[in-house]
Amino acid sequence: MYSKYLFTLPMQVRDYECDIEGIVNNANYLHYMEHTRHQFILQKGISFAQLHQKGIDMVVARITIAYKTPLCSEDRFVSCLNFRAEGIRYVFEQDIYRESDNKLVAKAQVDVVSIVNGRLGHCPELLEKLNSEMP
Amino acid sequence: MYSKYLFTLPMQVRDYECDIEGIVNNANYLHYMEHTRHQFILQKGISFAQLHQKGIDMVVARITIAYKTPLCSEDRFVSCLNFRAEGIRYVFEQDIYRESDNKLVAKAQVDVVSIVNGRLGHCPELLEKLNSEMP
Amino acid sequence: MYSKYLFTLPMQVRDYECDIEGIVNNANYLHYMEHTRHQFILQKGISFAQLHQKGIDMVVARITIAYKTPLCSEDRFVSCLNFRAEGIRYVFEQDIYRESDNKLVAKAQVDVVSIVNGRLGHCPELLEKLNSEMP
Amino acid sequence: MYSKYLFTLPMQVRDYECDIEGIVNNANYLHYMEHTRHQFILQKGISFAQLHQKGIDMVVARITIAYKTPLCSEDRFVSCLNFRAEGIRYVFEQDIYRESDNKLVAKAQVDVVSIVNGRLGHCPELLEKLNSEMP
Repeated sequence: MYSKYLFTLPMQVRDYECDIEGIVNNANYLHYMEHTRHQFILQKGISFAQLHQKGIDMVVARITIAYKTPLCSEDRFVSCLNFRAEGIRYVFEQDIYRESDNKLVAKAQVDVVSIVNGRLGHCPELLEKLNSEMP
Repeated sequence: MYSKYLFTLPMQVRDYECDIEGIVNNANYLHYMEHTRHQFILQKGISFAQLHQKGIDMVVARITIAYKTPLCSEDRFVSCLNFRAEGIRYVFEQDIYRESDNKLVAKAQVDVVSIVNGRLGHCPELLEKLNSEMP
Repeated sequence: MYSKYLFTLPMQVRDYECDIEGIVNNANYLHYMEHTRHQFILQKGISFAQLHQKGIDMVVARITIAYKTPLCSEDRFVSCLNFRAEGIRYVFEQDIYRESDNKLVAKAQVDVVSIVNGRLGHCPELLEKLNSEMP
Repeated sequence: MYSKYLFTLPMQVRDYECDIEGIVNNANYLHYMEHTRHQFILQKGISFAQLHQKGIDMVVARITIAYKTPLCSEDRFVSCLNFRAEGIRYVFEQDIYRESDNKLVAKAQVDVVSIVNGRLGHCPELLEKLNSEMP
């Protein structure tokens, strides 16, 4: 069922990510998704930290996220990603599934833009790598 | 300019909320907004923690957030909120402005639902309090 | 070199754990160490979340941590743990090593106590499981 | 009772800082204390973020923290700080008190060192400012 995604990352809930209600706090799903994007681009040969040192920042411009099933302590999950370029935006479709029953946990679209030396802009080198085949 | 909001909360960036890029990490804006909602409902006489102990959990169902201007170290900001009920959803319009120049930082809609003893449901007592006048 | 530890957990830095300085923020090492303890006790058949539901809370009483080498973006590391009981305290010796060169990253002692129904106390069942052989 | 401290900062628990047990997670006290140190040095005219841009990083070398009384949802607290220089270490004594009853929440010593262009070293300009009178 994960074959429709470009990239998948198995992860596991850490207890400090859960809040008073005993479920993962809503903000932490964005952390999971960011980590997934950064692992995805790393496999494409792009380091988020090195980009920053070169004056290129990938910045989140917009997120739409639907929370379907809450993750709890000890849950394992699979964080999945698809990617496409749309004008100057890098559009990531990011879904998270609970491993035990493949239930959809969260479904998001994350739009990222690149800021080159402080200005919103195209970054052809980045786009080329993102569109390359997985090694 | 904040008079169009039901509730506003002045806050300040903490350095640990900033990431490698030197700006507040995208997930932390959801933390700011959650804290703002909880302070808002607290002023209405509703405690998030006490609700949980009574078996009522307020859970985020959906968020749409546009990031307009990044917050940096030392920035002060105002976290603003409007609220309306729509069926079983509690809809929070949440905007954040940088204090120094009133620039819009982030604009979000956060849909919350209440889970009563494990089931999605209306919670009339909660709605009554949320719609009451500010004390 | 990890054979002197009761339990080891390979982990990896997530970029959101790094702060303005580009290194993992000091508080996040406590997160790594908590996750390691909880994975350790889970292997012993103890669930932190289930303990809480039974009215038993494991609470950190004291931490001494020396930061030796900072972790950076993309670093892999091994989080190691030894355990002993001392009176009512569960004492965890927790060391973190950078995977690339086995350099010591952080060295800590974490003292945990159990709170049973709101009171500091012994929890014989817990101790027995913690002292049992690894399955 | 706070007159024995050089600097005090009133703060309030945010619900996302609490974990499954309903109390503030142990790592978040380090966040509170870091924020307190940074607000303290800011009043002395030192910006943590600007220091980093100049190639000077203040890095935590060692922390000893005793957790005395847990903070819960809605708790207000006062984060207090004393400072002294000891050789190349900046030593911060940091205590947190619950506001409602002045109970000691946590007591810590945090040793910080400065890394100048990648090397551990004295930073006379920094020390002079830290030892100056509060404006």
